[in-house]
Amino acid sequence: MKFYDCAAAPSPRLVRMFIAEKGLNNAIETVEVDLRAKEQMEDNFRAINPFLTVPTLETDDGARFLTSQGCWRYLEDTHPDPALLGHDATEKALVADAIWRTEQDGFLAVGEALRNTAKGMKDRALTGPHNHAQIAELGERGKRRVMHFFDLIESTMSKQPYMAGETFSAADIMAFVTVEFAGWLKLTLPETSTNAQRWFDAVKARPSAAV
Amino acid sequence: MKFYDCAAAPSPRLVRMFIAEKGLNNAIETVEVDLRAKEQMEDNFRAINPFLTVPTLETDDGARFLTSQGCWRYLEDTHPDPALLGHDATEKALVADAIWRTEQDGFLAVGEALRNTAKGMKDRALTGPHNHAQIAELGERGKRRVMHFFDLIESTMSKQPYMAGETFSAADIMAFVTVEFAGWLKLTLPETSTNAQRWFDAVKARPSAAV
Repeated sequence: MKFYDCAAAPSPRLVRMFIAEKGLNNAIETVEVDLRAKEQMEDNFRAINPFLTVPTLETDDGARFLTSQGCWRYLEDTHPDPALLGHDATEKALVADAIWRTEQDGFLAVGEALRNTAKGMKDRALTGPHNHAQIAELGERGKRRVMHFFDLIESTMSKQPYMAGETFSAADIMAFVTVEFAGWLKLTLPETSTNAQRWFDAVKARPSAAV
Repeated sequence: MKFYDCAAAPSPRLVRMFIAEKGLNNAIETVEVDLRAKEQMEDNFRAINPFLTVPTLETDDGARFLTSQGCWRYLEDTHPDPALLGHDATEKALVADAIWRTEQDGFLAVGEALRNTAKGMKDRALTGPHNHAQIAELGERGKRRVMHFFDLIESTMSKQPYMAGETFSAADIMAFVTVEFAGWLKLTLPETSTNAQRWFDAVKARPSAAV
């Protein structure tokens, strides 16, 4: 198995942490794709992933998964222990809900805020093969949405220990990476969000958070 | 099991079609939530789904799934036949990829275009409990993205019969609902997209497309 990664970027980190939680660090070959040098735009990577994004996972049979969701799904099904996408039908669905919510309202909101405001991302307001101009209002909306998402973490953690319930899951990986990614915008968990902070510190202490 | 639906809306249709493909139409109680009358904003629905969206699925044990992803996951795991989220590990991951791509680049792009341009959706540029003003540029960007997504359907169908490969899956449900949803914006598959049109007609002919 081959994992196309970029050490500095948040999206592949979602899979890197997942791999570490599964204890697969040494079982998977990592190929670094330097997004700052725009290596994902070059023809050889375009042939691997036409959407020009990492993470990308390649199996020994040559199948390729081009999104975090695809990479997670494959790793979960081929290496089920420890489960990161839920144990029984109800928990699996609650994890799917929490991942979707965290991605839409958190992870993608940070990306929206960053890509629509950063000078270095002019015309790259979305990832992928098509250029899109920045929209200043969208950058501002993204920042407001990130703060709403922080409130959601706080209210969630006031009721349960993890994003999807009683058990650590991929939704916690995504929420954790989202909070760290928001730091690029100088947005941090509010000081009053003591439940969210306790959860964040607990995830930060896991060995997978250091990879 | 109880399914909170809205007959006129595209998001719950994703689950309605999935239920029909599973042959569960008569096994699940449907509760109509009239989005045009803003019933999702009322306190009794807010207590069911604080994100104020349908589809929402409630189990007999009282667990609730608040996104299409959560609803699909639960239905797939409790009623595995016919599989709509893939058969083996590789196919499951390819389906996850195709669902993510279709949702981000297709379904949500149509929503973005519609919600940022429709007069009736002022300040409702995103679903959920927070109001967001419309952004005209985002509406225009959304329309361009829908046309890119139509190109993606065409290039996909020139290589394989379904969105995720050789087998009909939930990714086809989402892509099909996306094309019909785009009709609200008067955006249609280009006449030259003969492969996409053949796929669309085949999905349209399935009994699930009529529910």
